[in-house]
Amino acid sequence: MIALQSNDKIPFYEQIYQAIRRDIEDGKISCGEKLPSTRLLASNLAVSRFTVELAYEQLVSEGYIRSRAGSGFFACDLVYHLAPDHNENTSKKNAMHMREESLAYRIDFSPYAIDEQHFPYNVWRRRSKEVLDDEENLLRTTGTKGDLSLRRQIATYLYRARGVKCEPEQIIVGAGNDTLLSLLVQLIDGQPTVIMENPTYVQAYQTLQRSGCKVCKAATDGDGILLSEEQKSRADIVYVMPSHQFPLGTVMPLKRRLALLDWANEKEGRYIIEDDHDSEFRYIGKPIPSLQSRDSFERVIYMGTFSKSITPSLRMSYMVLPEALLSRFDLHFDFYSSTVSTQQQRTVCRFMEAGDFERHLNRMRRNYKAKHDHLLQELKKRKWVKKISGANAGLHLVVEVAGEYSEPEILKKAAVQGVKIYGLKEYAIGEYDWSVHPTLLLGFGGLSIGQIDEGLRILDQILEKKACYEN
Amino acid sequence: MIALQSNDKIPFYEQIYQAIRRDIEDGKISCGEKLPSTRLLASNLAVSRFTVELAYEQLVSEGYIRSRAGSGFFACDLVYHLAPDHNENTSKKNAMHMREESLAYRIDFSPYAIDEQHFPYNVWRRRSKEVLDDEENLLRTTGTKGDLSLRRQIATYLYRARGVKCEPEQIIVGAGNDTLLSLLVQLIDGQPTVIMENPTYVQAYQTLQRSGCKVCKAATDGDGILLSEEQKSRADIVYVMPSHQFPLGTVMPLKRRLALLDWANEKEGRYIIEDDHDSEFRYIGKPIPSLQSRDSFERVIYMGTFSKSITPSLRMSYMVLPEALLSRFDLHFDFYSSTVSTQQQRTVCRFMEAGDFERHLNRMRRNYKAKHDHLLQELKKRKWVKKISGANAGLHLVVEVAGEYSEPEILKKAAVQGVKIYGLKEYAIGEYDWSVHPTLLLGFGGLSIGQIDEGLRILDQILEKKACYEN
Repeated sequence: MIALQSNDKIPFYEQIYQAIRRDIEDGKISCGEKLPSTRLLASNLAVSRFTVELAYEQLVSEGYIRSRAGSGFFACDLVYHLAPDHNENTSKKNAMHMREESLAYRIDFSPYAIDEQHFPYNVWRRRSKEVLDDEENLLRTTGTKGDLSLRRQIATYLYRARGVKCEPEQIIVGAGNDTLLSLLVQLIDGQPTVIMENPTYVQAYQTLQRSGCKVCKAATDGDGILLSEEQKSRADIVYVMPSHQFPLGTVMPLKRRLALLDWANEKEGRYIIEDDHDSEFRYIGKPIPSLQSRDSFERVIYMGTFSKSITPSLRMSYMVLPEALLSRFDLHFDFYSSTVSTQQQRTVCRFMEAGDFERHLNRMRRNYKAKHDHLLQELKKRKWVKKISGANAGLHLVVEVAGEYSEPEILKKAAVQGVKIYGLKEYAIGEYDWSVHPTLLLGFGGLSIGQIDEGLRILDQILEKKACYEN
Repeated sequence: MIALQSNDKIPFYEQIYQAIRRDIEDGKISCGEKLPSTRLLASNLAVSRFTVELAYEQLVSEGYIRSRAGSGFFACDLVYHLAPDHNENTSKKNAMHMREESLAYRIDFSPYAIDEQHFPYNVWRRRSKEVLDDEENLLRTTGTKGDLSLRRQIATYLYRARGVKCEPEQIIVGAGNDTLLSLLVQLIDGQPTVIMENPTYVQAYQTLQRSGCKVCKAATDGDGILLSEEQKSRADIVYVMPSHQFPLGTVMPLKRRLALLDWANEKEGRYIIEDDHDSEFRYIGKPIPSLQSRDSFERVIYMGTFSKSITPSLRMSYMVLPEALLSRFDLHFDFYSSTVSTQQQRTVCRFMEAGDFERHLNRMRRNYKAKHDHLLQELKKRKWVKKISGANAGLHLVVEVAGEYSEPEILKKAAVQGVKIYGLKEYAIGEYDWSVHPTLLLGFGGLSIGQIDEGLRILDQILEKKACYEN
């Protein structure tokens, strides 16, 4: 909090500027940390928003903070702040220049990124054009559950690829998993208690919590979720990712799957949400059938997404409702409108009907396998790698590393060199039992082999240099 | 409820078939009424789903019920059921034929429909192509609030057209009003009490209720919402459509707007949701500025949609957050993903940037005005018309009609002749003080002048014939 001196000779905006600058220089505000919005800070300090904007503007122009479009202001790393005197024009220019560079990471190990280079742009354009030319249907809304032809395609795909048994009428197409989760909570009476793995897909955690669920975290071991007796009796819903847990990459073995289904069957109204987010990409052995395929008593709500199999910019997911929830939806949601545009739904439908989707998946599986294998092989050569997990599926590896740096320190040091790394900490709910070693998520979907190599070289510098100092 | 005889010689499916057929013939199940899903009925009767499906199949093949893609089964009108003997092949064919016809209304007075004939398909294709060719951005997700360039366009448009004062950072683009309303409820602590007009936009009512709000209905008069003293003290949020209330078409005069703003200003945490759903189309006098434009204390949450100004199949809306809610969003929703695809957002953005949107609105305003004026003029000639309201704006008129038929009877008689009419009853929350006269919503957006005339001729037959019989 900033203590403004109203009888001070220094104007308010200058006081705010100095206080924040000091905090960044002292490391009280760390690199990448988000600053309060100008509105919030103005209201907290009881000054006009203009005053705060002036202070932020100065901080931006001097390279202490940067504004990210639509997201607000973030502290910069001071490595970019070379200016000894903040009032010199040259230093400003330097800061500006360095800031521009800092905006874009050269290499981003995002676990969400897909391979944009090998996206079938031409095919996608062709299918889009077909849909745009179909003037009869372009402006027509789809039903409450989404376009029927698309849902037929999804049902066929899910049965063939994931063993999911469902009819098109059970499928609801929606604008991303969160939208579907919100809808799902509306289908369930009261405020259900949901148990999630920890670490997990934080966005789902937040959505469930904000939608009124009581969300609790469960322990996990190498086989996935571990419910305590108390959780077993209290939970209404268990949210799991049995085929490839995010972020840990754990595969849940059959025995634990069956135990989970048994738990659900023991009492009316219990459900399992199976988030099958990146099941399309498995590089070794037989595909693992979905949990839903083992569910004889209509207890599993299956969720899938096109974010990795097509593109995250589509914002399109689907869920398969079991009997009781489907009846509720059919009875009470006749006013509901599908949350995905007709144009986008029909484009995906055409993409699937024409066989493009399957071809694309096969091509991408080979592509991702090559990167996966390369990254895995290279990691195995590294001395700083203590343990690799989550391999053989999905678009990232989980790597425990040795050395004295903490997880945030490694992330920061990589960021300074233009490499974005993701730490396991970001995916933890509340407090988390940190194992001794920092753990990195290395996503390879969006990177070329060359970029993977370059990123690893920079990690070598960070993690080996430290080892060097120690000797 | 069907009482199944298990020691009966007649198989279950046949018993179900007969029971439902009887109910339709006796009018216990009325035309257009939805049947329970096969899953639900099977579970209620404790028979297999296959049994119910068999019964429904027979009812469908005989024309008693029909299945609507993705929505379930509905009772047909028996006017289409010409077969005296249900086992004759010829009658089946007849029934089938008639059923096919019954699926599509010749004339649909939907208040939601837009003019599909005059949609600028070529321009839309051109903008879509530009977006599809921009491979750099097509696969990139937009920020939490949506594409920044699009939000800039919306901010400019809203200021010019509706007097809305806002910055792009206050705008959140989302997959329809319901998605945005759900998000909004997540931004507000606890379970707010929301007051809505009655009748109202039922989908918003249901969404707010399902998202955990306590929703109460307020009385209305010719000037819009009337809050009781008790409601004034209890309410956290008032949901209104001041520019053109749906479905009544009421315009809220300035005095009542200011009173509403005063109410909101009296206590911290009170908000007004201004749903400005079809404000683009006003045919007489000056445009009425938005309520938000009068709001000096950041109490109004402004919502708008492209459903009428472009097409409902886009599923794209936007809301403008006031200061306090924006700060919350900025602080707590960094994990949130925009719910509209990049491709669709950028297409609308290009459509606005290039001036197409404004040209389209001007053209459609002229187009809709011609239809509005024609329908109004024609209605004024009719003896069966008691009162017309909601004129001079939007895409429908509200018509009180004379005669002895009830509202549902009129709707049914029109449906038999292939004309779909909407009654005010469908938009009422809970019990509603029905005025003496049935009230019809006549939407003209999707109809040609010829179709309007034909629809009115059929209404003449229904409503004048009755008068005739009375004489």
